Amino acid sequence: MTRIVVDAMGGDLGLPAVVEGVARITREDTPIRILLVGDAPTLTETLAEYHHDPSRLQVIHSSSAIAMDEDPRLALERKDCSIAVAMQLLKDGEADALVSAGHTGATIVCASALLPRLPGVRRAALAAVYPTEQRHGPRQDPFALMLDVGATLNATAEDLVGFAVMGSAYASIISDNPSPRVALLSNGAEANKGTPAIKEAHQLLSELKSIDFAGNVEGLDIPRGTVDVIVCDGFLGNVVLKMLEGVSEVVTDLAKDAYARKFLWRLGLTMLSQGLRQLRSMTDWKQYGGAPLLGFDKVIIKAHGRSNARAVRNAIKVAAKAVDRDLTGRIRAGLAPSE
Amino acid sequence: MTRIVVDAMGGDLGLPAVVEGVARITREDTPIRILLVGDAPTLTETLAEYHHDPSRLQVIHSSSAIAMDEDPRLALERKDCSIAVAMQLLKDGEADALVSAGHTGATIVCASALLPRLPGVRRAALAAVYPTEQRHGPRQDPFALMLDVGATLNATAEDLVGFAVMGSAYASIISDNPSPRVALLSNGAEANKGTPAIKEAHQLLSELKSIDFAGNVEGLDIPRGTVDVIVCDGFLGNVVLKMLEGVSEVVTDLAKDAYARKFLWRLGLTMLSQGLRQLRSMTDWKQYGGAPLLGFDKVIIKAHGRSNARAVRNAIKVAAKAVDRDLTGRIRAGLAPSE
Repeated sequence: MTRIVVDAMGGDLGLPAVVEGVARITREDTPIRILLVGDAPTLTETLAEYHHDPSRLQVIHSSSAIAMDEDPRLALERKDCSIAVAMQLLKDGEADALVSAGHTGATIVCASALLPRLPGVRRAALAAVYPTEQRHGPRQDPFALMLDVGATLNATAEDLVGFAVMGSAYASIISDNPSPRVALLSNGAEANKGTPAIKEAHQLLSELKSIDFAGNVEGLDIPRGTVDVIVCDGFLGNVVLKMLEGVSEVVTDLAKDAYARKFLWRLGLTMLSQGLRQLRSMTDWKQYGGAPLLGFDKVIIKAHGRSNARAVRNAIKVAAKAVDRDLTGRIRAGLAPSE
Repeated sequence: MTRIVVDAMGGDLGLPAVVEGVARITREDTPIRILLVGDAPTLTETLAEYHHDPSRLQVIHSSSAIAMDEDPRLALERKDCSIAVAMQLLKDGEADALVSAGHTGATIVCASALLPRLPGVRRAALAAVYPTEQRHGPRQDPFALMLDVGATLNATAEDLVGFAVMGSAYASIISDNPSPRVALLSNGAEANKGTPAIKEAHQLLSELKSIDFAGNVEGLDIPRGTVDVIVCDGFLGNVVLKMLEGVSEVVTDLAKDAYARKFLWRLGLTMLSQGLRQLRSMTDWKQYGGAPLLGFDKVIIKAHGRSNARAVRNAIKVAAKAVDRDLTGRIRAGLAPSE
């Protein structure tokens, strides 16, 4: 039985989406048990609306929450907020993993304050899957992994090496890929391109045996999906990831605009539906299961802020998979000094 | 009469595309005179193939060139290479502006070695136009400007301020926009988001009266085109710009793939031709006229490496426009200490 604690509060789509996703999981044939943290009366009332298995679900009350527009550091003062209560349960061993669809910053702040880091990890990283043209791993997944996308603004060479090992471990688990190809994002493919931290990380990674290091990649390689894992600092990763979201938005807008315009358009689009579905799946990658917060001795998955029930369910499944396949043990092993 | 020196060597599509673009300009009713630098016998021979006005064109021989895969610093040793010869003509006042479709790095290296920087400019910046969803300026241009995209890897706060002023001056000229909105690219819209250099630049730009500073923008705002000019360091700009190229490639690949597949597809695509044209123009922005290298006391335009004749012609037109509208004077004025 894998025990997942879920913070039900604070998501953009609100509590019902989280509750529906959780209810769905309890009806599936998986050995997952949920601790659902939030305002107990509201949760109980909402749960009544969705068919669920109450024997695999426990509601735990928290009297407050961190709203999306609040300062993340409030999570340390407001001891009874849902993310703090959930993180404490994780710390106390009451759960094996945590899933949150709420405030990303508050999740990072709570994890940093309460959980020990894995040996050899100086800075945590938030990783994100994003859609690519090329496929990845034996399952031919249409997405790659990028980290850090927002936990560590400014990364040293050692931090980048840690991100590479953590990203490799996570990608190997979600894509069933025994040896994901990992690269540094830089302004040129050559080893001498990039900031001093990138150049030094390149050198360190070239000597590291525990991962498959593919050298540097450029901006062009991000949408192509030349490698399975792209490593960069949190500032660059944040800009790149938000830009990908922006591109999706623009493509979707253009398609909608076209659709509204006239009959011929509508006919043309219907004929193109299969291709458009491909484009849409490329722009709707939030279905893939959330962003792991890596570097702590527990599994933490941040579901996307705009998560619907399906995305919440997928994030819980991914969290359970990461526990079952020993994500933290793999990161430990990858970062252990070689003999 | 505006005199433009054109480096004809080293472009990816080769000398004929440059010669064809130049020939086209000489036939147009514009007061532009061209100095064409390169291997004289080849240039003369190629020119014979294109209808042109020889009275508005002069060929100047250079005995070598810098190939795209060579070290840019070779441009300083190989004194007779086309870009060095062209830059020297610019320096000596034989031309008002320079256009190159060759090696970007070699163009930057030559400019840095030969030309004085404008007062107040510590570091040069390469700017690029890129397609956006929103339109810009009174002409409703479907593109925005981003700088630096590769001249200055690591920019201080003062460098970023310089880029903002230079970008504003250039955008005002190419888009007939008296007051372009300029923003810093960061990991959040708030003034306290970003690296130390970005935070300091934010403060400095807030106090600067000579430009319309719109604060910080995020990755999302790049494809949307929320502002007219986006300012960042050359490392980030390089990754972002190449990523945009990569996204274009992927969209084009998907469309081609669809096209090849079957008759219904082809029919659907024909019906969608207008919308696809819009998408294609968004992915074929190199037509817009090249990337200015800003910060020197002369106008320099880098035509895209894969420039065809039309792109070369547009780059020459833009260079002439920048001279006529006193780009360097506007930058000077924008950076002058206020009373």
